[in-house]
Amino acid sequence: MDKSVAAVVLAAGKGTRMKSKKSKVLHTILDKPMLEYIYDALDGIKTKKVVTVVGHQKDQIIDRFDNRSDFVTQDEQLGTGHAVMQAEGKLKDFPGHVLILCGDTPLLTSKTLKKLTDYHLDGGYEGTILTAHQQDPSGYGRVIRGEQNNVTSVVEQKDATESQKKIKEVNTGIFIFKAKTLFKLLKNVENNNAQGEYYLPDVLKIMIENQMDVGAMQMEDSTEMIGINDRVMLQHAQKVMQNKINLELMQEGVTIIDPESTYISPECRIAQDVTVYPMTFLKGNTMIEEGAVIGPNATVVNSKIGRNTVVVQSQVQDSEVRDDVQVGPFTHIRPKCVVSNKVKLGNFVEIKNAKVGEGSKASHLSYLGDCTVEEGVNIGCGTITVNYDGRNKHHTLIKKGAFIGSNSNLIAPITVGEDGFVAAGSTVSKDVPSESLVIARGRETVKKNWRKK
Amino acid sequence: MDKSVAAVVLAAGKGTRMKSKKSKVLHTILDKPMLEYIYDALDGIKTKKVVTVVGHQKDQIIDRFDNRSDFVTQDEQLGTGHAVMQAEGKLKDFPGHVLILCGDTPLLTSKTLKKLTDYHLDGGYEGTILTAHQQDPSGYGRVIRGEQNNVTSVVEQKDATESQKKIKEVNTGIFIFKAKTLFKLLKNVENNNAQGEYYLPDVLKIMIENQMDVGAMQMEDSTEMIGINDRVMLQHAQKVMQNKINLELMQEGVTIIDPESTYISPECRIAQDVTVYPMTFLKGNTMIEEGAVIGPNATVVNSKIGRNTVVVQSQVQDSEVRDDVQVGPFTHIRPKCVVSNKVKLGNFVEIKNAKVGEGSKASHLSYLGDCTVEEGVNIGCGTITVNYDGRNKHHTLIKKGAFIGSNSNLIAPITVGEDGFVAAGSTVSKDVPSESLVIARGRETVKKNWRKK
Amino acid sequence: MDKSVAAVVLAAGKGTRMKSKKSKVLHTILDKPMLEYIYDALDGIKTKKVVTVVGHQKDQIIDRFDNRSDFVTQDEQLGTGHAVMQAEGKLKDFPGHVLILCGDTPLLTSKTLKKLTDYHLDGGYEGTILTAHQQDPSGYGRVIRGEQNNVTSVVEQKDATESQKKIKEVNTGIFIFKAKTLFKLLKNVENNNAQGEYYLPDVLKIMIENQMDVGAMQMEDSTEMIGINDRVMLQHAQKVMQNKINLELMQEGVTIIDPESTYISPECRIAQDVTVYPMTFLKGNTMIEEGAVIGPNATVVNSKIGRNTVVVQSQVQDSEVRDDVQVGPFTHIRPKCVVSNKVKLGNFVEIKNAKVGEGSKASHLSYLGDCTVEEGVNIGCGTITVNYDGRNKHHTLIKKGAFIGSNSNLIAPITVGEDGFVAAGSTVSKDVPSESLVIARGRETVKKNWRKK
Repeated sequence: MDKSVAAVVLAAGKGTRMKSKKSKVLHTILDKPMLEYIYDALDGIKTKKVVTVVGHQKDQIIDRFDNRSDFVTQDEQLGTGHAVMQAEGKLKDFPGHVLILCGDTPLLTSKTLKKLTDYHLDGGYEGTILTAHQQDPSGYGRVIRGEQNNVTSVVEQKDATESQKKIKEVNTGIFIFKAKTLFKLLKNVENNNAQGEYYLPDVLKIMIENQMDVGAMQMEDSTEMIGINDRVMLQHAQKVMQNKINLELMQEGVTIIDPESTYISPECRIAQDVTVYPMTFLKGNTMIEEGAVIGPNATVVNSKIGRNTVVVQSQVQDSEVRDDVQVGPFTHIRPKCVVSNKVKLGNFVEIKNAKVGEGSKASHLSYLGDCTVEEGVNIGCGTITVNYDGRNKHHTLIKKGAFIGSNSNLIAPITVGEDGFVAAGSTVSKDVPSESLVIARGRETVKKNWRKK
Repeated sequence: MDKSVAAVVLAAGKGTRMKSKKSKVLHTILDKPMLEYIYDALDGIKTKKVVTVVGHQKDQIIDRFDNRSDFVTQDEQLGTGHAVMQAEGKLKDFPGHVLILCGDTPLLTSKTLKKLTDYHLDGGYEGTILTAHQQDPSGYGRVIRGEQNNVTSVVEQKDATESQKKIKEVNTGIFIFKAKTLFKLLKNVENNNAQGEYYLPDVLKIMIENQMDVGAMQMEDSTEMIGINDRVMLQHAQKVMQNKINLELMQEGVTIIDPESTYISPECRIAQDVTVYPMTFLKGNTMIEEGAVIGPNATVVNSKIGRNTVVVQSQVQDSEVRDDVQVGPFTHIRPKCVVSNKVKLGNFVEIKNAKVGEGSKASHLSYLGDCTVEEGVNIGCGTITVNYDGRNKHHTLIKKGAFIGSNSNLIAPITVGEDGFVAAGSTVSKDVPSESLVIARGRETVKKNWRKK
Repeated sequence: MDKSVAAVVLAAGKGTRMKSKKSKVLHTILDKPMLEYIYDALDGIKTKKVVTVVGHQKDQIIDRFDNRSDFVTQDEQLGTGHAVMQAEGKLKDFPGHVLILCGDTPLLTSKTLKKLTDYHLDGGYEGTILTAHQQDPSGYGRVIRGEQNNVTSVVEQKDATESQKKIKEVNTGIFIFKAKTLFKLLKNVENNNAQGEYYLPDVLKIMIENQMDVGAMQMEDSTEMIGINDRVMLQHAQKVMQNKINLELMQEGVTIIDPESTYISPECRIAQDVTVYPMTFLKGNTMIEEGAVIGPNATVVNSKIGRNTVVVQSQVQDSEVRDDVQVGPFTHIRPKCVVSNKVKLGNFVEIKNAKVGEGSKASHLSYLGDCTVEEGVNIGCGTITVNYDGRNKHHTLIKKGAFIGSNSNLIAPITVGEDGFVAAGSTVSKDVPSESLVIARGRETVKKNWRKK
């Protein structure tokens, strides 16, 4: 038996209640579009092929996820069955199984999809429905099971009897079918219902009528089926995901002072004995090493923070900050920086495309852009690397042991030699030899009793 | 029938449990005094006249709201009936109806007051009580209704029988009466009770005894009757209001990452597809246009933020920031600024009373005060408009296309001409002609091997 | 009868579920180690002697709390009875009573310990157990009481009958015994149980068997017994403590906009009519006086903030800020500062080891380190005290009424005399006489039409 799995992701709906010019499935949770969560979950089970059915705002979706899926268009939204039919062209020769899921259920995990496909494949079913237990099942389709616990039908809320309405096992909208069976039976689905739509669960119904083997697996954590139709649900789903991530991190040895105001993306790796203070955002592919202290009020994006480094009230983006570094408060590390061990970057300091060597300090009110600062350098308060001449950006090199006096301007391209010394208040445009002092100041003139005049 | 409505607002109480030198009704919710919410709600139903009964800390109240109400003083606090009597002088010739409410119920809405007055006027009642359903009614006066659902009495907690205590319809303390009837019957209210006070609900009792038509309308949302007696309730009421505002905005198409840490005043107008990150305060008459991203950790007061503008970790006050502008992190826009499209204001930049033209940039560590920056200007890192000479503030004009080098001082009054260029590190006190370079630096002197000496 | 009390604190456990290189009892709640809360609670009842039983990671504990306790080592963890036996050497001659408690229950208060010891001493008991009512008692040892309400046994969860399991009075693990009785009976405790451990509650059992008088007192607030075994409980305990502190402050007349994001240490003293905005941290021995406004996003550590002072979006550490001062946004007050009345410290200003006199202003982008600024001084934007020459720190003195122009450097040691005036852009290395102007600038040179070339 062919055990390969393809997926059809339904993402053609209008998402009217989002009240947005942006496609519903591009709205983000922890800064990642909900559809990307679906693709990531599918990657996690090594899906052979993904076909996304798009309709409303399809160009936005295709532009964003061109490399993650094939796309087919459903011009008219005639029901979930109709949506899946659109994918037939891409999958008609597919020898395995087709997983069908929605683009707006971002909490769905690989783990659950793996269990579902294993259940389906091991059971040898023609089709399997993923179900969930809902404490309040109202609004959902109920899963009716027979005497041997086999599924006998799926009944929509509006068609359910009073006793069926009490059933708490519901349809998640997620299915897996043998590909050939699916596309064959889809042709038999009819739209003779109130909405005039072709419903995907009807395939299951036809299977049951034809005594095919139909499976039903209940997901462990019913929050995974949360579907997002408006911004209130978007926020709710985000909170559920945030809580799961934070709980797991705390159990693994991370101190989180307030999980309610700590926003950590699923991709982050946080080591044991890290402390995260409130109002902290750790985004993208960020890694925090043992003993680091992050926050309060810190944002770290796609960066690596080393051991015992402290980042307070600061922002770090696309950079590497190594061990025992002090960052903040009020520091901004912009992209492409590498900050070595034991560096101090203090308040009102911005660095960009900068390498800062071990033990160097820029404690206050400085801008280091497009530069290399070697080890043991003291960057005085108010130092500016003048990296832009109105046309091009230039590089500054400050060699080890140099001392840059306060309020100095280093006009790039420029090199300050080893142990070079720039006097406070100097604007320097020529290289400073090693061990030399450069001074560039106006003469001090005193006008006595000037105030009285 | 005269349908005009006047209001008496009761605000004479001591508010002992607030433990404050400030009058209870001046304590704020989302930065607006609670009494102002009452006046705003009354404005919403076009009240003809408002009389506020003041006592404790009355000067504070009158100073603050002189233009929103007439005031009468209740020197001794002898009950709600006695309080209303004090207003008789201001309302004895008023031909319409008198709404009576408390100054400490800031969640009460115009919508509810409109429904109450419509109910009262349409029903032709002599007096009407606004009631509420409370899941836990203990402590409140219970509303007793007769067989035809008409009110037969209002019973205080302490006088209630066991079966009456189970009634969940309670007195909100809000009433509307025909003015003439009210003041006539108030004279018959007695203070022969345990507290020796004149109770306003006794007017209703007298009406019922005299077979007058008495109405009772239940409010839809019982949180509107929340009265504030201490800081715990103040915080609770604020949270209720905050949640209502945020929920409504989310339903209207605003993404709010965490409603619990988002503080938006009722006056703000936020467009669809705006994203608000946590720890954001939008205050006063602020307007945010479509696609803008605000926060985290942003405060915007009485300002307008344009389309697709991003304000991160920054403060904006009494200013207009137009479209596609980048603000922050760590930027401070003080009052009277107009920031045009596509401007960038970066970290550690402060502007005040400044016009910044389209596409101009001040990316780092600058102060622009009392100035006009035209379009396409580059403000180098560390630029300072020296606007204060110790006596007066002066204006700086930087014309289009100018380039201000890093760490420059522009001593106002001064003009930098079109495409003028100020060399880095210059202190400039005279106008810079267009297309010209100005440079004002000390000569660079190098002392070789200085370190060794 | 000797009423003196000693304490044995059990802190030898491994704390495996913390997943930490740090001893469990050194993990912090509101920045104070949990063991310190225990010592503080014991101080509150004037304990004569404290013996802490340590084992895992004992060096960390002893290093940190050398001055708060004697220490004995339990090399093998053979049960709570065995742990207490280790303390015998330190307490065998102690004539009074021994309180036994755990190092991981930081919410336990002096008040409860006082009640317990009073109960024990007044009742003349040989031993007393502190109990608690738990709505969900599962997992705890149940306290079984006889007909006269006396304790007859303590039954572990695993040994409890179904009816015993329904008992909601549980063992908190906290006891007080007559010292002599305790150490005598401990010798009779056996380890013939499943774990092979010596259990402390068995002492109570032996007492009951020998008809000794045994007391049992139930604590009022069962959250005080919360024990911390992992980071999830650590966070939970912190939230409980945070809520208690904030609730009490609100009841005492402090406005807290959002208690969920306000972190105030137990030692802080906050006056009436202070307003605390969200994401504010008040740490250590901090005192805030009447009418001050702190936050949002402020951190104040071991500092005093005066009346009506406003601290917005700023950090203050180990300093005194007096009355009517404006701090922030984006201001950093580092240790050893004294800021007098009516000072203004604005955005991107850092001060350190600085005295700032009444009414002086540093509104923007300045660094004042190691300096004395007298009253009525204007510190221009971009002013830097150049306090470090690469070897030593030097002092700056700015006398009253002085005016420091923008972007000036004051090279310490230096004095600016009374009413002295430093022209903008000057680097000043010599003292400025009173009433005099100093100017140190390069000559302005204009190169016309430079841009075209």
